[in-house]
Amino acid sequence: MDSLSTGAISENGLVRTSPDLRKLAVDLFAKFRNDSFDGVGISRETYGPSETAAIEVIERIGREHGLPTRWDAARNLIVTLPGRDPSLPAVATGSHLDSVPQGGNFDGAAGVIASLLGLLAARRRGRALRNIDLYVLRGEESAWYGGPCYFGSRALFGQITPEDFRSPHRSSGHNLEHHMARCNVDLKPLRDGAPLIDPMSLACWIELHIEQGPVLIAREKPVGLVTGIRGNVRRRRAVCRGEAAHSGAVPRWLRRDAVLAMADLLVRLDEHWRMLLEYGEDLVLTTGIVETNPKEHAVSRVPGEVAFALEYRSQDAKTLRSFGNVIESECEQVQQRRGVTFNLGSAIYTEPARMSAKLTDLLRAEADTAEIPYEIMPSGAGHDSAVFANAGVPSAMIFVRNDKGSHNPHESMDYEDFFHGSAVLAGALWRTSNSVEEFRE
Amino acid sequence: MDSLSTGAISENGLVRTSPDLRKLAVDLFAKFRNDSFDGVGISRETYGPSETAAIEVIERIGREHGLPTRWDAARNLIVTLPGRDPSLPAVATGSHLDSVPQGGNFDGAAGVIASLLGLLAARRRGRALRNIDLYVLRGEESAWYGGPCYFGSRALFGQITPEDFRSPHRSSGHNLEHHMARCNVDLKPLRDGAPLIDPMSLACWIELHIEQGPVLIAREKPVGLVTGIRGNVRRRRAVCRGEAAHSGAVPRWLRRDAVLAMADLLVRLDEHWRMLLEYGEDLVLTTGIVETNPKEHAVSRVPGEVAFALEYRSQDAKTLRSFGNVIESECEQVQQRRGVTFNLGSAIYTEPARMSAKLTDLLRAEADTAEIPYEIMPSGAGHDSAVFANAGVPSAMIFVRNDKGSHNPHESMDYEDFFHGSAVLAGALWRTSNSVEEFRE
Repeated sequence: MDSLSTGAISENGLVRTSPDLRKLAVDLFAKFRNDSFDGVGISRETYGPSETAAIEVIERIGREHGLPTRWDAARNLIVTLPGRDPSLPAVATGSHLDSVPQGGNFDGAAGVIASLLGLLAARRRGRALRNIDLYVLRGEESAWYGGPCYFGSRALFGQITPEDFRSPHRSSGHNLEHHMARCNVDLKPLRDGAPLIDPMSLACWIELHIEQGPVLIAREKPVGLVTGIRGNVRRRRAVCRGEAAHSGAVPRWLRRDAVLAMADLLVRLDEHWRMLLEYGEDLVLTTGIVETNPKEHAVSRVPGEVAFALEYRSQDAKTLRSFGNVIESECEQVQQRRGVTFNLGSAIYTEPARMSAKLTDLLRAEADTAEIPYEIMPSGAGHDSAVFANAGVPSAMIFVRNDKGSHNPHESMDYEDFFHGSAVLAGALWRTSNSVEEFRE
Repeated sequence: MDSLSTGAISENGLVRTSPDLRKLAVDLFAKFRNDSFDGVGISRETYGPSETAAIEVIERIGREHGLPTRWDAARNLIVTLPGRDPSLPAVATGSHLDSVPQGGNFDGAAGVIASLLGLLAARRRGRALRNIDLYVLRGEESAWYGGPCYFGSRALFGQITPEDFRSPHRSSGHNLEHHMARCNVDLKPLRDGAPLIDPMSLACWIELHIEQGPVLIAREKPVGLVTGIRGNVRRRRAVCRGEAAHSGAVPRWLRRDAVLAMADLLVRLDEHWRMLLEYGEDLVLTTGIVETNPKEHAVSRVPGEVAFALEYRSQDAKTLRSFGNVIESECEQVQQRRGVTFNLGSAIYTEPARMSAKLTDLLRAEADTAEIPYEIMPSGAGHDSAVFANAGVPSAMIFVRNDKGSHNPHESMDYEDFFHGSAVLAGALWRTSNSVEEFRE
């Protein structure tokens, strides 16, 4: 083992996750992988049977350890470690258990398992002041319903919209409401926009998650402490319409080629992106989906239509707004030049979120005590923590180093790194659950 | 009626298609439309039941008129008007009866119906010297098997390849060989590459087809006489591979975005195309299909792969070769710049073809006699006539004015224009079938 996986372990025992908890974690990862391998990667479908099955595994283990469990109206699972004064705002922790299709085993699951270890480790240390609630959240990923996401955490705060319910599943032919109902979700409070919990009933929220980017690998640190989370704008289905025509018989000057127009737009936006980075803005731009219509496209047909996704993210709400204006302006340019029309479709906004400085300082103190190297960093990816933070719950996040990104079958987390991150989380849960101080600023 | 639809009719009666033949044609178009409407446009599938049904309609009408009919090994139908000396090379005419998916009713069918009228009109004028053979050809369109086409005419000359047989149907899960077998094709001679006819057994080939471009509309002429046919290179499935990654967490400089790389390539090729036209080259470029993988693409995932079609056409074989080099060179540039790899996949070449000057002069004389305005023009689209011409059969083509292009449900041919074109064809069939002269040069 190299210095990162052993040298960071301090003498006070805080960091050393006990062998039985280590085994529990490794066995859980193996079971999740086994239960939800789809032939290529991991598929735990948002509000689908494979997600439910994984959550039920956590429910069973919670019960086996004598911890009270309950399902809320949105079919999130809450496992509670009772404190001495349950009337105080609780410390909340957790993550999600769904994955993207053909995804990896650690995205989401690492946080749930680390939180479970945190509850079990805390119970061994004594009876804390406050309850610690593990939230096993549903439906964090955007891949299954074409853009909208954070369904489980947004349901907690009464934020599910009629558009969410209507979002079509990527392949089933049904919408989210249908699949929620099949998971025994109590739709009424969600339809009414009724919060399932009062944000003031939570003292704080702390989530561990694998890093989905390459920063910790590059910095050679096992753990990251997150300062803020990028917001994003998602357009699931933008459409460029031109005119279908015979590919041999229509000369260039009479064409209205939808694919070339889309390519023109994307290259222009890519160039703007490059410039904006040079100006110091925070921005990423992605077109993850492009498709001509399989019912009518052909090698020998000038494409009359192409659909494509547009997603851009920034830590800065102003940059998101400004880049939206850039996109509209470039669409107009391409429309004029190429005789096409763009319809960008509906947009889903997720606001950027700030993590609590007080909580992040507390995480920092835990990591320093345990001599675990860490990086202070923003999160490029969105997380349920952003929903908690924007709902007014002081929030913090711990990243665990992970190679080869996420949202793919090759994500690669070293278990030693995971146990380092889990130790920081466990320490922070113990500290906050014994704190009389509130973390709201 | 305007001057184009009436004023061009000469006094000698050649042009005036008789009322019963007019009614036969109009009824046939209506029947074809009715039988193969797919809810949006016309679908007569290459080596599919709807194509067979349309061909059988022609078989029935041929028989009703007492004309011998037969199916060849490739299940093309041949309807013969016997001449006085069947040992002489025959005059061949015809076209195809398949359509693209959601296509129009006239592409292909107009030529078959015009040829049928030509046989029936010739019989009324007497017994010609040579046989006139109407070929109702199968499988001219490239849309059903992802690129390869002209199956019916290529089978005539022993040109079906193992790759053709293996070409996958766009949706059935089977390949061409399977669908041919279901149409009772005798696969053995096709597999052996055995010609079904000797090119020397045909005196000439004359095909009428709707124009698939906008030239005759722009020139306000009902009929076009074709000098040559563009060849093309088709790559049904080029693939750009980068690396899938989380769209929020991976910064620009670490991305290998397959869609942006493809867009970059297409915009570069579009610019080369524009320049080459300014240099006076003949070229069209089309990417009619683009698709990220529905099993793994997502709004929030940097696309790791995108597939796209590439097709380019020119009347000049040298331009086709040179543009192929341009594509390869630009792929290399984009690969280096964006960390992706392009695999352009297999290419299907169709050689450009020259029409017979002697035959085109003969068509010209017919149109002049009949006072039908015509345009001398190249064909941007490929046609079975190119296969006949490149096999050594002196060939000619008559275009009929057609609005709104083809390969779409909106193609719009005026019946008066069709009867003008049919009259030129009928006149040419009568003339050539009574000629002792051969048309080979």
